[in-house]
Amino acid sequence: MTETHSASAPTHPLIESDRVEGTVVYDVNGKQIGTIKRLVIEKVSGNIAYAVTSFRAFLGAGSETHAIPWDYLHYDLKLQGYRTTITEDQLRNAPEFSRRDDYLLSGRDWELLAEYYAGPL
Amino acid sequence: MTETHSASAPTHPLIESDRVEGTVVYDVNGKQIGTIKRLVIEKVSGNIAYAVTSFRAFLGAGSETHAIPWDYLHYDLKLQGYRTTITEDQLRNAPEFSRRDDYLLSGRDWELLAEYYAGPL
Repeated sequence: MTETHSASAPTHPLIESDRVEGTVVYDVNGKQIGTIKRLVIEKVSGNIAYAVTSFRAFLGAGSETHAIPWDYLHYDLKLQGYRTTITEDQLRNAPEFSRRDDYLLSGRDWELLAEYYAGPL
Repeated sequence: MTETHSASAPTHPLIESDRVEGTVVYDVNGKQIGTIKRLVIEKVSGNIAYAVTSFRAFLGAGSETHAIPWDYLHYDLKLQGYRTTITEDQLRNAPEFSRRDDYLLSGRDWELLAEYYAGPL
């Protein structure tokens, strides 16, 4: 019989896109700093561009939503969540347009955001 | 002012993962053959592995769900949907395990499925 797994199996190497919502994001020290709200996909390349992520305990002043380039989120099998090297300072200084919850970034803004996180602090 | 787009803008180069549901799939002749139900993501690589797709008019005997490797779905800006080279014959002969709706494929099955679509008819 073919082996299958429940869609919600946390140790399974695959995850359904509609279940990514709520996956925890950890900082470099393994501290829980936020949760993924949804993924945004480049239609033509088929790659995931960024994750709309809600940061909670990380920032003093309530929760904030940020678009985080997918390259900065690395799945950690042990933590069963995504680890990021992005820091509180980077989030504090992130461009305003990357803090919106309900809009897709324009191509230019998406480019600027990738440059922002790639650049020096 | 920063340019943004409504999340549902069909011509926008980005799409939210929770809006991929319902995107139309076309055959090589541009005929509508199905719709995407959800995407399945490889947690570690962060790549989309396959799309659970519902095929309707394509198959005589009612609708069928198939796991379609993401590499076989190419976004067509003009059609505003995904075009696939996968044929009715390939779907008819696809392994049983790739027809399930509510389970994630095991690593081995996912490998077998990729081989099935890559191989000769």
